[in-house]
Order: sequence, then structure tokens, then C-alpha cells
Amino acid sequence: MNTLLLDSDDVDEHATLADVIDAVEQAFAAFERGTTQMPAKSYIDLPQYNGDFRSMPAYLDTGEWDAAGLKWVNVHPDNPADHGLPTVLGTMIYSDPETAFPLAIMDGTTLTMKRTGAAAAVATDYLAVDDASSLGIVGAGVQSYTQLEAISDVRSIEEVVVSDPDEERVQRFVDAYADRFDVRAGSISEAGHCDVLSTVTPVEDPIVGLEDVGEHTHVNAIGADAEGKHELRDELLAAATIVIDDHEQCTHSGEINVPYGEGVLTDADIHGEIGELVVGSKASRTDGTGITVFDSTGLAIQDVAAARVVYERASETGDGLGFDMVGVDGR
Amino acid sequence: MNTLLLDSDDVDEHATLADVIDAVEQAFAAFERGTTQMPAKSYIDLPQYNGDFRSMPAYLDTGEWDAAGLKWVNVHPDNPADHGLPTVLGTMIYSDPETAFPLAIMDGTTLTMKRTGAAAAVATDYLAVDDASSLGIVGAGVQSYTQLEAISDVRSIEEVVVSDPDEERVQRFVDAYADRFDVRAGSISEAGHCDVLSTVTPVEDPIVGLEDVGEHTHVNAIGADAEGKHELRDELLAAATIVIDDHEQCTHSGEINVPYGEGVLTDADIHGEIGELVVGSKASRTDGTGITVFDSTGLAIQDVAAARVVYERASETGDGLGFDMVGVDGR
Repeated sequence: MNTLLLDSDDVDEHATLADVIDAVEQAFAAFERGTTQMPAKSYIDLPQYNGDFRSMPAYLDTGEWDAAGLKWVNVHPDNPADHGLPTVLGTMIYSDPETAFPLAIMDGTTLTMKRTGAAAAVATDYLAVDDASSLGIVGAGVQSYTQLEAISDVRSIEEVVVSDPDEERVQRFVDAYADRFDVRAGSISEAGHCDVLSTVTPVEDPIVGLEDVGEHTHVNAIGADAEGKHELRDELLAAATIVIDDHEQCTHSGEINVPYGEGVLTDADIHGEIGELVVGSKASRTDGTGITVFDSTGLAIQDVAAARVVYERASETGDGLGFDMVGVDGR
Repeated sequence: MNTLLLDSDDVDEHATLADVIDAVEQAFAAFERGTTQMPAKSYIDLPQYNGDFRSMPAYLDTGEWDAAGLKWVNVHPDNPADHGLPTVLGTMIYSDPETAFPLAIMDGTTLTMKRTGAAAAVATDYLAVDDASSLGIVGAGVQSYTQLEAISDVRSIEEVVVSDPDEERVQRFVDAYADRFDVRAGSISEAGHCDVLSTVTPVEDPIVGLEDVGEHTHVNAIGADAEGKHELRDELLAAATIVIDDHEQCTHSGEINVPYGEGVLTDADIHGEIGELVVGSKASRTDGTGITVFDSTGLAIQDVAAARVVYERASETGDGLGFDMVGVDGR
């Protein structure tokens, strides 16, 4: 029996965002219904290399389908400068839950970007104004591309404002999308006054204030992924309806971790989990809703859900490389 | 940059037992010196499939080398009958700790057998009589083969007695080794009266009593890998010098977990961890030592240490399949 090997190009091709968004939305719903298993991420800290590894196993049952797998991923910030490698490298093992056979092994780096974009899209679908047509992006790194791709799948985005101190990165982004969107460089405030804002930076000192966003802007706070990191100032969070992906992860390493740790922000300030909006147990945007913030830390079930899309589609088209790793026939 | 893909045959060829035994011994020593990181195994329980998944990440620094990786493994007892697949299927990702680049992905099933055999060999080397020449094996499944291969690397084994109610399995084992050893079928007591005994069964009711072993037999208790499982009767454990691999794992899911949980066996009855014997902080067998028992649950650092052997040797010989999974050049 072969295990299907899928490289970054395969994942890019088959992680079609409409399908991944749908799968991630189903994963959030399953999480809320309690039909997922997601042990806490295990960390291996390697200060001698300024890096860490994270193990993210998960199982989910959406009612329509179930899936299992594990992502082994890292954060090594010195990689780009010292080794010509990305900061984050991921490997995903996608397994048959019934037998544990490794159905596919795929690049987890591209997968992570896709499922992160998809999570922002799901949140945007439930929290942005219905007629949202403008998207601001703060931080023009690799994640900014999937933010635009995914969010434009759930809203008819026409205008895009991208903000980043690195002019080259901004130009690269603008060039990439000039033919599909009215896209331009702008300040953080200009980006924040769009209908939707995605922040995808690694900053530890917040860079987006209350005055930088519109009255009804929906903000996807993507960047914070570790204790001490946040992109939005406390007064912006205080004014916003806050939706999180997972309480444990968000309060420890998400956008809200710093004010939550300081007691400035409490559970009473959290409107709900995104899964609660999906299943309808908490309200999505209404006419009276002002600023909304989605704190996205990234759940292991998102990876498994996205991997299923990639595996199913690649299998259908016959893409990827079959590899008889285990050396068994099965039946 | 390519990730090296290694199937079960590659792992079998390059996990040369002498090297794996040496690597596992170094891993046990590093564990004792505190230069390893091994988060607790994460479990995903799937009672609907009578199975589970286990995530085993680890890092170790032996002083001479360091290594990181993760094994994603399962136990699905219905696999053989229902799906023609092994109960245990493993996938190992072997990563560069400095950059997290996935250097190799390899079959973890064969790797598990090798590193488990290697652990028994290390324990046998420290705990069996020096002139041990006979080995008993209770349970003639897949693990029995690596037990003999590995243990015969550290002692001059001539006589082998294998015990299993399944005559076909016994015959297969005898046939496999008839040309290299004086090997025959026998009772549990005959196997247990060898100089070394390895028990590799999944039983929940102990099958080896005190009367079944010799006065100086060293027992490698390999089979117990979950709460409720044990192979040795309490009176045998009570009479033996007990060495464990890891306190947490052994008291929860190892050979000693049942009597430990019942309070019949306490910490005072545990002589030490195998790593303590390796570094010399606890005594190995002396002239006064009687029966010894090694409770082997299997540590994630064993997998990483064994994977390093496989990766290094396969790289040298140019074996395996290079796969540009991540799609980066690096430098």
C-alpha cells in the first residue's frame, strides 16, 4: 500500500481555498460539538538554536467525515538569514483513523498558510459586514497572500491596502495582485479603515490602535503565536467584539495573551469561540455590532481538515508520488 | 533541498543493530544527564475503531551529537484480522534540530522493532550474567526476531528457546534461526530458565511466575505497553532487581503498572532507571544479584537515536528516495 507524498506545489494546487474554508468551518463546528480530539501542542524548546518544535496531533469527526493526522512544525526565526530556509517548516502526516495507515505525507508549510487563511475567511464570513469590499493587510510576508486569496472567497473584495515598512515586500504583493484587485500600499490606518483588516506580523509591541480602524471593521489578528506577542492595542481590543479560536491557545499565545495575562482583558470580554458562531450558539455580526476581532492561533484540527482536502483531491487527479513506505499490502 | 524517504526495507538495512544499540545506550545516558527533551506522549483514543494514535516528539544531545524528531504511531489490534495490516504502524520524521528541516521521513514500524530490541540489548548488557549463552523468548510475534538479533549482539547466545501457543509462529521463528542458533520450541518455564528471557506478548494476565525463571535470569519485559497489561507475576517482580526505562511511563503503562497501581510494588522496589546504570550512578549486575527485570516501555529518544543511525548510514550509501517536499533551496 502506498503513502501519497505531496510536495509544496501539490499542496498549493490541491488546497483549493473554497474547499479548505468549508473544511475548516466544519472543523470549527465539530470542535464546538465536542467531536474532536486535540491534545495540547507539545513543545520542544531549543534556545541554543533560537528555535522550537511543536507537535500537533488531532482527530475530528464532522458527522459527514472523520480524519486524523499530525503536524510537526517549528519556529526558527534565524532560518532565513542563517540558512536560507523559512522560519516555519511543517510536515503533515495524514492518517486513516480506522487503521492508522499513513495515507499521505505532505508539506505542512504551505498547508499551514492555507488553513490559516481559511480560518480568517471563516471568521470574516461570520463577522465582516455583508457588503465588505475592501481588505487591509498589515504585514506583507508569506501569510498576506493567502489572507487575500481566502478572504476574497467569502466577500467580494475589490480594494486592497497593504502596509509594511519593507517597500520591496509591499511592491511584490502589489505586483502579484494588480491584475485582480485595486491594490495599493498604504499606512496602517489606511489598511485598518477597510471593511476587513488582517494583521500578519510578528510584533511584540502592538501597532494597530483604536483610531486606526473603521467603526465596523472586522480584524483578523493572525500574527501573535507566542506568549508576549500582540498586534492590537488594548483600547482596540476593549472596544471590539472578540472572537477566539480556542480559549487555552488564545490566552496563552494568541492576540489576547498579553492583556489577558495582565488582567486587562478577562473572559467576560470574550464574545465566544468561532465554532460557536458556526453552530449558531453565539451571535455573528448584527446591525448593532461595531469593531470585531478574531484571535486566530491555529488549531491542529484545521491542519487535519485541510490535509483531507489536499489528499482527496490529489488522489482523484492522480497527483503526488506513491511511496510504499510501510511495506504491507493490506486489503 | 531533499528530504530522504526511507521505506521499511531501507530502515531494516540501515538500522544495524550494533549501531542502534550504541545510539540507544547513549540516549539513555543523555536522559539521565538531563540533556534530552521528551514531552509526554499525546494520545488520541478512538474506541469506535478499537485503536489509538500516539505522538512521540523528542530531542536529545549526547555531547557527541544531537538529534530531533517525532514518531507518529498507533495501536489498532483489529488491523491484522480486519484489514490485513499490522497492529502497529509508525511514521518517523527525523529533523535537523538547528533548522528543523525534515532530513528524513522513514517507516516507523521497523524502526520501533529495532530500537525496542536495542533497548533490551542495552539492559541485557548491564544486567545479564557475563557468560550468558541462552536466550528464552515468550511470544513469537514480530518483536521476537529483533530481540534475538539485538541480544545476540551483546552476549554470545548459542541456545534459544521460544514459547508461544501458536505453533505456526514458533515454527516460523525456529526456521528463521535454525542455521545460526541451537533454537527450539519450549515451555514458558524452559524459556525462563535461560540466562536471558525476553517476554514480548500483549497479555493482561501474567504468564511468567517466579518458578519459571532461573536464579540469575535477566528478564526483558517488553510486552506491556498500556494500563492493565503485564506479563510477570507479582512474586517474580518482588524477587527481582527491577530496572525501568522511565518512571512516568513504566508506572502508567509498563510491566510494573498494575502492581504499582495496586500499591503492591512501590518506588522502593525499583532499583533505578537504565540510564543510571549506563552512566554508572546505579549498580549493574554484581555477583550477588539474582533475578533482574528490565521494564521497557520505549522512549521517544530511542526512536530519534535509531532514526539518526538509519539516516546517517542511508545518506552515506545513497539509499532512499530524495523528495523535495518543502520546495526550498537552503544553503
